[in-house]
Amino acid sequence: MTDTRIETDSIGEIEVEADRYWGAQTERSRRNFRIGEERMPMALIRAFAIQKKACALANKDLGELPADIAEAIAAVADEIVAGGLTDHFPLVVWQTGSGTQTNMNLNEVIANRASVRLGGEMGTKTPVHPNDHVNRGQSSNDSMPTAMAIAVGVEANERLLPALKQLLTSLEAKEKAFAEIVKIGRTHTQDATPLTLGQEFSGYAQQLRNGIARIEAALPRAMELAQGGTAVGTGLNSKQGFDRLVAEKVAEATGLPFTTAPNKFEALAAHDALVEMSGALNTLAASLMKIANDIRFLGSGPRSGLGELILPANEPGSSIMPGKVNPTQAEALTQVAAQVMGNHTTVTVAGSNGHFELNVFKPVIVHNVLQSIRLIADGAVSFAEHCIDGIEANESRIAELMRQSLMLVTALNPHIGYDNAARIAKKAHAEGTTLKEAAVALDLVSAEDFDRWVDPKAMIGPSA
Amino acid sequence: MTDTRIETDSIGEIEVEADRYWGAQTERSRRNFRIGEERMPMALIRAFAIQKKACALANKDLGELPADIAEAIAAVADEIVAGGLTDHFPLVVWQTGSGTQTNMNLNEVIANRASVRLGGEMGTKTPVHPNDHVNRGQSSNDSMPTAMAIAVGVEANERLLPALKQLLTSLEAKEKAFAEIVKIGRTHTQDATPLTLGQEFSGYAQQLRNGIARIEAALPRAMELAQGGTAVGTGLNSKQGFDRLVAEKVAEATGLPFTTAPNKFEALAAHDALVEMSGALNTLAASLMKIANDIRFLGSGPRSGLGELILPANEPGSSIMPGKVNPTQAEALTQVAAQVMGNHTTVTVAGSNGHFELNVFKPVIVHNVLQSIRLIADGAVSFAEHCIDGIEANESRIAELMRQSLMLVTALNPHIGYDNAARIAKKAHAEGTTLKEAAVALDLVSAEDFDRWVDPKAMIGPSA
Amino acid sequence: MTDTRIETDSIGEIEVEADRYWGAQTERSRRNFRIGEERMPMALIRAFAIQKKACALANKDLGELPADIAEAIAAVADEIVAGGLTDHFPLVVWQTGSGTQTNMNLNEVIANRASVRLGGEMGTKTPVHPNDHVNRGQSSNDSMPTAMAIAVGVEANERLLPALKQLLTSLEAKEKAFAEIVKIGRTHTQDATPLTLGQEFSGYAQQLRNGIARIEAALPRAMELAQGGTAVGTGLNSKQGFDRLVAEKVAEATGLPFTTAPNKFEALAAHDALVEMSGALNTLAASLMKIANDIRFLGSGPRSGLGELILPANEPGSSIMPGKVNPTQAEALTQVAAQVMGNHTTVTVAGSNGHFELNVFKPVIVHNVLQSIRLIADGAVSFAEHCIDGIEANESRIAELMRQSLMLVTALNPHIGYDNAARIAKKAHAEGTTLKEAAVALDLVSAEDFDRWVDPKAMIGPSA
Amino acid sequence: MTDTRIETDSIGEIEVEADRYWGAQTERSRRNFRIGEERMPMALIRAFAIQKKACALANKDLGELPADIAEAIAAVADEIVAGGLTDHFPLVVWQTGSGTQTNMNLNEVIANRASVRLGGEMGTKTPVHPNDHVNRGQSSNDSMPTAMAIAVGVEANERLLPALKQLLTSLEAKEKAFAEIVKIGRTHTQDATPLTLGQEFSGYAQQLRNGIARIEAALPRAMELAQGGTAVGTGLNSKQGFDRLVAEKVAEATGLPFTTAPNKFEALAAHDALVEMSGALNTLAASLMKIANDIRFLGSGPRSGLGELILPANEPGSSIMPGKVNPTQAEALTQVAAQVMGNHTTVTVAGSNGHFELNVFKPVIVHNVLQSIRLIADGAVSFAEHCIDGIEANESRIAELMRQSLMLVTALNPHIGYDNAARIAKKAHAEGTTLKEAAVALDLVSAEDFDRWVDPKAMIGPSA
Repeated sequence: MTDTRIETDSIGEIEVEADRYWGAQTERSRRNFRIGEERMPMALIRAFAIQKKACALANKDLGELPADIAEAIAAVADEIVAGGLTDHFPLVVWQTGSGTQTNMNLNEVIANRASVRLGGEMGTKTPVHPNDHVNRGQSSNDSMPTAMAIAVGVEANERLLPALKQLLTSLEAKEKAFAEIVKIGRTHTQDATPLTLGQEFSGYAQQLRNGIARIEAALPRAMELAQGGTAVGTGLNSKQGFDRLVAEKVAEATGLPFTTAPNKFEALAAHDALVEMSGALNTLAASLMKIANDIRFLGSGPRSGLGELILPANEPGSSIMPGKVNPTQAEALTQVAAQVMGNHTTVTVAGSNGHFELNVFKPVIVHNVLQSIRLIADGAVSFAEHCIDGIEANESRIAELMRQSLMLVTALNPHIGYDNAARIAKKAHAEGTTLKEAAVALDLVSAEDFDRWVDPKAMIGPSA
Repeated sequence: MTDTRIETDSIGEIEVEADRYWGAQTERSRRNFRIGEERMPMALIRAFAIQKKACALANKDLGELPADIAEAIAAVADEIVAGGLTDHFPLVVWQTGSGTQTNMNLNEVIANRASVRLGGEMGTKTPVHPNDHVNRGQSSNDSMPTAMAIAVGVEANERLLPALKQLLTSLEAKEKAFAEIVKIGRTHTQDATPLTLGQEFSGYAQQLRNGIARIEAALPRAMELAQGGTAVGTGLNSKQGFDRLVAEKVAEATGLPFTTAPNKFEALAAHDALVEMSGALNTLAASLMKIANDIRFLGSGPRSGLGELILPANEPGSSIMPGKVNPTQAEALTQVAAQVMGNHTTVTVAGSNGHFELNVFKPVIVHNVLQSIRLIADGAVSFAEHCIDGIEANESRIAELMRQSLMLVTALNPHIGYDNAARIAKKAHAEGTTLKEAAVALDLVSAEDFDRWVDPKAMIGPSA
Repeated sequence: MTDTRIETDSIGEIEVEADRYWGAQTERSRRNFRIGEERMPMALIRAFAIQKKACALANKDLGELPADIAEAIAAVADEIVAGGLTDHFPLVVWQTGSGTQTNMNLNEVIANRASVRLGGEMGTKTPVHPNDHVNRGQSSNDSMPTAMAIAVGVEANERLLPALKQLLTSLEAKEKAFAEIVKIGRTHTQDATPLTLGQEFSGYAQQLRNGIARIEAALPRAMELAQGGTAVGTGLNSKQGFDRLVAEKVAEATGLPFTTAPNKFEALAAHDALVEMSGALNTLAASLMKIANDIRFLGSGPRSGLGELILPANEPGSSIMPGKVNPTQAEALTQVAAQVMGNHTTVTVAGSNGHFELNVFKPVIVHNVLQSIRLIADGAVSFAEHCIDGIEANESRIAELMRQSLMLVTALNPHIGYDNAARIAKKAHAEGTTLKEAAVALDLVSAEDFDRWVDPKAMIGPSA
Repeated sequence: MTDTRIETDSIGEIEVEADRYWGAQTERSRRNFRIGEERMPMALIRAFAIQKKACALANKDLGELPADIAEAIAAVADEIVAGGLTDHFPLVVWQTGSGTQTNMNLNEVIANRASVRLGGEMGTKTPVHPNDHVNRGQSSNDSMPTAMAIAVGVEANERLLPALKQLLTSLEAKEKAFAEIVKIGRTHTQDATPLTLGQEFSGYAQQLRNGIARIEAALPRAMELAQGGTAVGTGLNSKQGFDRLVAEKVAEATGLPFTTAPNKFEALAAHDALVEMSGALNTLAASLMKIANDIRFLGSGPRSGLGELILPANEPGSSIMPGKVNPTQAEALTQVAAQVMGNHTTVTVAGSNGHFELNVFKPVIVHNVLQSIRLIADGAVSFAEHCIDGIEANESRIAELMRQSLMLVTALNPHIGYDNAARIAKKAHAEGTTLKEAAVALDLVSAEDFDRWVDPKAMIGPSA
């Protein structure tokens, strides 16, 4: 039997395990929402602590909170930001759609712990009260979206963008390393005119470069803070200027350019900025799916596939086929991409379903956006380190495939016209000969002209 | 510093923590796939243990494995099914798309532990070898989909269907309890002709009833086992009859009607059966979104909403608005619905991307399907127990809203025609009078006829 | 200047082009909803005509409509079913969510034309009134879902299932034709153990077989008719037995097993049955995406791809690369698949957003489901006729790729164990030799044993 | 029997209707792709004409085309841009994924018509050849994405942005008109603290404002032109500088800031820019779904709903319920939103499935993006003109609902604390009294203080 203490809220009394800092409302949520296993993301809990500290300090500045109480709140918040107290945030994502219960979880834990610090006792709400002090001038309705914005802003800036830049750097390194390797191009999955392997990788690099730009374009709106809107966006029970002050303190604490939302009604009632951010992540997912698919097909083989790339052999590939090596990093990344696409559907549905002054799909939205950020970031780093960085070109295979291609005939178009060039290609294909043999046999090009005109190295750019 | 031992695979040696049963391939996966936090679901690990035991016993029956080794494997599998050894399955979802690494995780843990049981030593692969014994006659390519089918079959039968039936029972109870309460109907969110509150709940009940039927319709295909296909579907290195024997042993172990897949090529290369199952879950999500939305709107208020239903007040609703009670269970359930819809997109994308003999989105598919099952099941139970069961009708409010409705005029259509009835409704609306006053003023219906013809209780069914 | 006549409704008078049969409400919708170009699908208009006729005849049987009026209605309905009057249904999908305006379009066109047939004049609503006669005992709220069910039921039975069966037959023919061609298998896109090309096609055939079963499983619920529910599901202003009678007449007219919905509240307020049907179509889309992707990769080349299949050359493939032939049918089909997946998201979102007694996303739901049916059906036929039927196996290429595969080593597992087999494969890979050379060099297998054990033809099934 | 002429391509001869300008490849596509009814959007055909003209003129400038031929091409292109020749573009969306057949359709129509203009004969390819002249220096692989970018750029700038701005203006007008009307707020669909109706509309306006910014942010990347990449991105068979020259000519012709893509490999192989644009449209869809849902719920009634807004009565609402008026514009708009969300899934799936040097889902991508643009644009205008502009506030109803709200108690928090305020609200709720009565009865606030502190007009902003 565990020791318990009594906590109270406006519904009444309830028993809580004695060594937990949470209070009545957290406990009720634990009991009433036994749904799934997905806890509120720790990135959100830490963001909430940043938000609580910023509000406490702003309230102190505005004369709304005594300094000792504000500082006690800030101190506990710092503990949480630093990664402490993790066992005191037990609530799942599948709770009230405003995140009120997680906001109260923060309020209760901070109030109890700050009260103890100041010599009080848990469960007494003195000297620090969860609502009147920790939640001072706030509502869950503005605190939760503020915490969401902080979590997304921090994770995007500190986890996602560096990861994408790492993958970009890896791709650019290969673009450079493979700059001289001429290979067959493929369109419609079919043989086409040549390009360099470096050019092929330059396309992937451009996708990543654009992906980074997309995240950066979405971030300013995603980093607008709802704080100061309180319950419905009006700011009732907060002080004028509280909103801007909180945004400044959050920006200062994180070193990131958070701002106060220009319209608090929108900031509570909609999460368009996260739908937008999820759209940017979804675009990245589409890019990564494309890139990883190419890599695994170009690396297919070792003997009966395309075989142009040699992928790092990180682990045995098969429990039954000895010696098999698989493009497992591409597989992990494409699975990540599929997850992010689905998360985007979730965020879109959730974002579209706000009613009146409050969107009540906040937990599921932030859960999915943070998961997408985390998965793309980790997936990009893993793919860069365990796949891209170790890729080698199978140059002999590349040369073999390129030389035998019928699509080199395209270089003849400007000289003999599309229709004649087509006759050559069709003849060579039907008879299994080289293009040159077919060209000469048809008397359309001399052997000398053929050699001069059909030079793969000269086919990788526009003519002067 | 932790103690370690050496484990080996075809790549070479690697250090593993000494007290962990896993081997080299699990360890490599841990190191190479540091992506996200989502571990392979325990429901899948348990299903894999069922699969390993069934294969061991089938191999014993077929003379492919010595009895002592088969029984040692089965004994460890039983431990896992019973919930043991959970700390020995550390791998995340975001790994190789065949699930090979999790299959090897099972093979390695079982081999090491069974070896120890039989007097051997961890890391020696004797007397029980992870590939040659635990994975005997198997490939990851058939074992993983087999475990997926077992996990989904068990979870759907044992968790989901009972949960849906509980919610159905709750809805049916309200259908019955509210059978006599006549209320205003609403179409286009606007006032419409009356129905009973019981009839309204009967629609919800029918949605659940159909939802159960949809799951049941999808289950037979989802419970076909790929085992016996080995690497590409041919069954190479397995014995004839192995497939059917394994299916029998799985059916016996679970008490559920698992069968062997009629075509093993399809069973490895595609996961259409799980895309289908996810579609059934998606349909349930759409149903639950509709029902939960209705409940929260019908329960809106307490004073300035529709206010027809009184929802249970399970927790304080607001950190700033005292006394507020919110439809939090509806909010959790609609968030679950949004998640399941997104998971369905993920499963669809993943299911469509199989290539050649193997779909390599297996982990993300099973992760999402199992999560959807779990969330709908838990969400349905929570919604039944904490919301539906406690709903009361606000009969006075219902009667008030019904009486004042202009749409009762519809009962006059068969007597005076649509156009005349419309004139009455429009006049009453414009002048703020009752329908009866307008009808008499327009001289279209006598007061007596009006009372006889416009009787809400007589408007809730077809005429005789 | 066009001639016009005056039509009226409860809003007032409005001018309509003189030679159009539609009335005031259709005209208002035309003017108020200038959104997009997508007209209500003709399959729905024809289904509505079937519904109107069935209701007229049922009303006649029940004594609710005079025989001459009922028959005049039926006669015009027959014209529409036969493909006539198409210029009189101008409304777009993006209108009222109940489809009321299209229901009224039918009512108005039929009333005007039937009135003229009976000697009346357009615009007078006599002798046939759009509401009191054509819409007798009906509401848009039950008529529209009834028409939706009829349209989907007819299209699925008469267009989709035959098309899927044609594609299945084509795949089965190739399964048989290619039964003896042993080829390399591919898992993770990498070389794997062999199978026959016929076995590969058998997997596709199984996917289609299951897809057909999925449509058939969803159809009974999709073919339940809401008729008889009238405005909110109660059946107010209809006669007892009207629902069953209408269903019988629809079944008779179409020769298909339509039934009356067991719960009319559900049938108006939700479209779960179409969400389910869309899920079955979505599963087919995933199957077709997989199959078409395989076909185009197996047919890639002609010289620098996999080149195992020779696809029919239906048209020139490139405006710049002479002689290029592309897997264009696979491209059309995969684009269809992508569209169907998106339509499914639309249907899911629309299906989940019903409120109270009526889902008001009816037009967008039926538009998408009918489009998905049409696209999959046409796409399947086109793919069968212009691609699958003409596929030939490139047997020499297949044999070459198979012979050089390292994964044939898997056949050695039962003889020398996984670890030894892996050593052979890795050595052959590293040194570019054959497996046999590596095996003998490692002294693990004799040349004779190697030839006996490693026989691709013996590797395409389980051992006896 | 129609007159025909013979056209030829590299496959051979084929009969074409004599009065059609298209050639052999268009005709083959017509016959081989009898899939669905969705033709290539005319916005794309017009964009293609702009592209063909720009290329012809650039080729003239570069000395690659004789002036008379270039000018004849430009003249026909101008006809098409002006809306002519629409009957000569018969191809459907469901064709080759590169759009080659539509590119050839343009090439063939322009070549034939320009040849006739210059005194030649249809079918002779002289003096203007479809490939060698009209397609000069181009491939379908760069021409199609160029046309896609032009179509999307033009439609977004000329149709979408003006429409969104119109709706924004309408919303801002209501924000201003309703600035003084204090009303009850609603969070969780439940009564909450007050705000003004103007504030509520300000949130909608902010959503639109952000939506416009999102489209504008996505446009620069969507307006990058692939032209100059030719078949695989290298620019083979084009001249240096051709890419920039074409972009200049397109920019000039449209008056819009089109640019040449910085990396042509990315521009052919991926359509991330359209996935991104579709994401911006998807975010708008989520915004519009939210706004339209609010409008219909706030306008619900007329007697038994919320009834705060009076929506314009544009048409009769029901075929059975006389006098009913429905929020039909909201219904059309939410259906549009559902479609756009689904289109976004399609675009995402299609965008993610590019392989190697070419994404072959081009037609389905552009079809969906253009449809989404069109639907949101038309839907926004229709919603503005037929709904928002005509909305009136039901001030008496608003005042009544506001006055009776229990959530006004929130104003007491700063004076008596959250817990005491909660006691008042709960007592008033339980006993059906006013807040003031409960407050005084509990002796927590004097009547005078209550009146001073609880003033709705003072609750719509932060305190000084």
